Formats: sequence, structure tokens, C-alpha cells
Amino acid sequence: MKLGARNQLKGTVQQIKKGSIMCQITVELDPKGRMSSVCTLDSLKELGIKKGDKVRLIAKAVNVLVIKD
Amino acid sequence: MKLGARNQLKGTVQQIKKGSIMCQITVELDPKGRMSSVCTLDSLKELGIKKGDKVRLIAKAVNVLVIKD
Amino acid sequence: MKLGARNQLKGTVQQIKKGSIMCQITVELDPKGRMSSVCTLDSLKELGIKKGDKVRLIAKAVNVLVIKD
Amino acid sequence: MKLGARNQLKGTVQQIKKGSIMCQITVELDPKGRMSSVCTLDSLKELGIKKGDKVRLIAKAVNVLVIKD
Amino acid sequence: MKLGARNQLKGTVQQIKKGSIMCQITVELDPKGRMSSVCTLDSLKELGIKKGDKVRLIAKAVNVLVIKD
Amino acid sequence: MKLGARNQLKGTVQQIKKGSIMCQITVELDPKGRMSSVCTLDSLKELGIKKGDKVRLIAKAVNVLVIKD
Repeated sequence: MKLGARNQLKGTVQQIKKGSIMCQITVELDPKGRMSSVCTLDSLKELGIKKGDKVRLIAKAVNVLVIKD
Repeated sequence: MKLGARNQLKGTVQQIKKGSIMCQITVELDPKGRMSSVCTLDSLKELGIKKGDKVRLIAKAVNVLVIKD
Repeated sequence: MKLGARNQLKGTVQQIKKGSIMCQITVELDPKGRMSSVCTLDSLKELGIKKGDKVRLIAKAVNVLVIKD
Repeated sequence: MKLGARNQLKGTVQQIKKGSIMCQITVELDPKGRMSSVCTLDSLKELGIKKGDKVRLIAKAVNVLVIKD
Repeated sequence: MKLGARNQLKGTVQQIKKGSIMCQITVELDPKGRMSSVCTLDSLKELGIKKGDKVRLIAKAVNVLVIKD
Repeated sequence: MKLGARNQLKGTVQQIKKGSIMCQITVELDPKGRMSSVCTLDSLKELGIKKGDKVRLIAKAVNVLVIKD
């Protein structure tokens, strides 16, 4: 299976916080850093992930913002 | 200056490809990995970045997709 | 600090509604109009804003939709 | 016709720049400010807008980022 | 009224789940399939939709991801 | 492989238009309808798709807008 998005980061699920319709999945990136994804509880159920699972994070390039300090 | 987005990654600009209205900025992440951002040429001009510059990449959590292999 | 997004609007925080993982920040634009941003509670904490604070709102051009009546 | 997005700004089309598959529509906001939208040339054709036309700009709250200086 | 987005799907509202600030609208597509939209409760109120209503779903092409199995 | 997005539509690649950094992939949905995705040429190369290929289209619920006529 291939995706039309080359921005992929690997990591381990560190925390899953559930709201009433959405959830926040926090991932410890490999080798370092942290990133969160927000999706519906329906999608979380479909994913079937839990703390400690290895996952990939995808972000389309158009949704990435560059900042220069 | 603070941002309403905690998904931040640091890196170095590796390549800037210009189209007719958009551009693609490829960033070598620290310590490893690569990520691209697509924005308008207007924004690129505003940013004033060039190859080798240190930048931060931002992606709102709602625009990050989790994949489980 | 510079951003790769030229769509910037200034305004004053009018209301912050907190959900279980997300929050909605409503901003009174200067000189008129109103706009909302939805982000995680983590990002809100990072921002450290409260009612009455001056803020800027950013939206990447690709995420802006044009409508003709 | 009603939309599931309350972030609406009114303005006048100031410039339309065409690329090979995308275009950038720059809108002079009423009463002041400027905002750009990027969409496909197909969508531009569907919209049928030209310089001077009155339009509305829509951005979903989840795609709006708050910055505090 | 015309929109700068050609990705439009028609369907019938099947379910509306409300959270504290957001809601999830599930739509049964015509002729088949299902799709969800997440928006603020403010937008839902503005839309004024209920189960059984006919609606259109819009997604900008830049926010659509292609997958090849 | 599982994805954190339940909004999935199946179809056949009908056309691929290439720009200088981006491309537009138009997909004929099954059983009917049409949808476009815009991504970088890098992602297109990674996908390795051509006209006639079967693909899936993904859109996060937060990026889907509801319209009521």
C-alpha cells in the first residue's frame, strides 16, 4: 500500500486522550520529538491502536507551515 | 511569539523548488528524516529563507493522520 | 520570526470555550468581523492567552475557500 | 444555501494568478486587509470569477492558527 | 451561489453526534458509501440540519489523499 | 495497514495533470461521481499510479464541509 504523501514520521503511541467525539493521539517520535494527531473516535476504533504501538504519522505538505526565527 | 500548535519540528532547508504560483520547501529534520512544505511564492518571499537556513515546521494536530502497519 | 503564510488577521480574544481535548477561541477582528480557531487544550496552554488578549490568526491559502453569491 | 463554517469574510477579487494546475485568488477584504485562496484551475472555471467581483472567503476553524506576539 | 471546490458529494444526514464544542455529522452518500464531517456546534446551529436532510459535502482537492493498495 | 480516517472512497484514476511541483489526480468514483486530489510530484512518483489504476481517496472529517441548499 502506497500513499500520496511523502511526509511520514515514525514513532510510538505514548498517550490516547478521548473526548466525546474526537480523540488526541500523542506519539513519541523516533529518534526524538513528539507529535499529536486529532481524529474521530470512529477512526480510533478503526485503527485499533493502544499505548506502546508503533505507528506512522502523515501530514500533507500543503498543511505544513514553515517558520523562520 | 507563541503559536497555537504544539506539533513543531526543527530542521535545515535543503531545497526550494519554485513553481508558477507555489513552491516546495524540503527540510532535513534534526536529527533525521525529511519533510516538505508547500506554500505560495508570496509566502516564500515573506519568509526570506534560502538553502541552509534553520527553520521550524508546524502542522496542526487535526491535519496529522495516523497509520498502523 | 516569520511565517510561511501571508493570510494574517489581527483581533482580540472574545471567548474561549473548552471541550475535553479541544477548545474554540473566538476572536473579534480589527476593525470588524469575527473568526474562530479550534485547537487542542495543549496548544491553548502553550499559547497562554485569555479574554481580551491581542492575537493574530493565520490560515494557509490552500485552506481558504472562495464563494461567489 | 447554508455552510457548515462560520468563518466568513467578504471582499473584492483583486488579482487572479494562474499556474499550470492551480491558481491564486487575492481578495481585498472589506473594510481592510488582504487574503489569498489557492484552488485548482477547474474550480476557478466553475467559480467563473474575475477581477472586481464580490466574493466570500471561508476557512474552517480547525485550519485557523492563533499566534500571540 | 458557486464554490471554489469541485469535489462535491451528495447525501442524506444519517446521524449527528454532539460533543462539547464540536459535532460529527455522518452522511449516507447517494448512491452508496458514508462520509463524516466534523465542525463546531456554532456551525451546526448555522446550518440548521437534522437527520434525514439532503446535504452536499465539500473537500478541497489539496486535502484529499490518494492511496494505492 | 490501517488509517486514522474513515472517510474513504474507491475509484479509478481517470486523469493525471502535472504542474511544475504539484499534480492533480482526477478519480472516477465507484459507482459514480468524480473527485480530485492535489499532491506534490514527489508524492505522485512515490505512488506510482497511472490512468486506469484502482485507488482509494481519503479525507479527514475535519476537512469536509457540509452545505445545505
